[in-house]
Amino acid sequence: MKLYDCRVAPNPRRARMFLAEKGIALDTVEVDILGGENLQAAFLAINPRGLLPVLELDDGTRIDEVMSICRYFEELQPAPRLLGRDARERAIVTSRQRKMEFDGMIAASEVFRNGHADFARRSLPGAGSDVLPAIPALIERGRQTLARFFHWLEVYLGEADYLAGDAFSMVDITAVCAIDFAGWCDIHVPPGNARTLDWYTRVSARPSAQA
Amino acid sequence: MKLYDCRVAPNPRRARMFLAEKGIALDTVEVDILGGENLQAAFLAINPRGLLPVLELDDGTRIDEVMSICRYFEELQPAPRLLGRDARERAIVTSRQRKMEFDGMIAASEVFRNGHADFARRSLPGAGSDVLPAIPALIERGRQTLARFFHWLEVYLGEADYLAGDAFSMVDITAVCAIDFAGWCDIHVPPGNARTLDWYTRVSARPSAQA
Repeated sequence: MKLYDCRVAPNPRRARMFLAEKGIALDTVEVDILGGENLQAAFLAINPRGLLPVLELDDGTRIDEVMSICRYFEELQPAPRLLGRDARERAIVTSRQRKMEFDGMIAASEVFRNGHADFARRSLPGAGSDVLPAIPALIERGRQTLARFFHWLEVYLGEADYLAGDAFSMVDITAVCAIDFAGWCDIHVPPGNARTLDWYTRVSARPSAQA
Repeated sequence: MKLYDCRVAPNPRRARMFLAEKGIALDTVEVDILGGENLQAAFLAINPRGLLPVLELDDGTRIDEVMSICRYFEELQPAPRLLGRDARERAIVTSRQRKMEFDGMIAASEVFRNGHADFARRSLPGAGSDVLPAIPALIERGRQTLARFFHWLEVYLGEADYLAGDAFSMVDITAVCAIDFAGWCDIHVPPGNARTLDWYTRVSARPSAQA
């Protein structure tokens, strides 16, 4: 098995954090997104969508999409459980994980891509989207969505120590990666959100956060 | 248990199809999205995001996000498996399911909402987004994304009878719901995509498609 990875990209970081929490070490192939390697023929033969991360199984099967990769390893090595410990908790983790993606990761991506000169002709990531010019109105939409994201983090952390209850989970991984991604655009947790700032310090101090 | 539902909305339909395939009948509460009931106080007390569907468990726990609800029932009643039959297939189903969502459902939603007079001040669905004006450029972005979605359906159906292999799965459910949603904007499977048109006829003929 090997993981096609990219050190600087937020989604591959989610996979690395997940694997590090489980103590799983994989062979990795670094793909240079900044140099455009993900959109060149060699990598498009691995993933025609040009996106990372991609997991390649020993039988040659390739699995893209970070949550697919995480679910696969949650089955192969359940401990520690990062996607919930019983059916009810798994449903909650799935639900909140998606909010962290939609309102956190994707909103940060919209702000970043649609405001950055390098992506003036590529509003969406990956291959086949080079005819989609940036849409500046998405910067404001992303900022408003991130404001709601920060609000909900504070609400969830008023209920428990982590974002899906008393155990660290994928929800926390996606949220911290989204926060650091939003930071690229100088968007940060509001200074009054004390619970979130405390949680962010705790999660960022985990060794996996450096993976 | 009960399901907060909406007959006309594409995401609740995904949950209904999933439940119908498993033969699960739930008590439902119909929420009138067209009349704005989902954004009124009574429903916001159920789901502050104002989105459907929502599953309410007997202990009062509420689970929103259609995929969370589907995963919950996949555990409660595994047969027939709709999210994959082994770890490898589950990873593939998760990955392709997400493509059907991002490139199908969400793209159709962007075309629909950003071009419809009723949503001129609400580019995103749900509560708290009434200060986000429609973004007309998303119509073209959505159309281009749907063109890629249709391309990939045809590729996947060249590999097997269903979108994630030889078994009907959630990937097929999300795709057919996305196609019908895109139809609201008069966007259809290209007439030359013979495999997709055949698959669409087969899937639409399943009793669950009327659920």
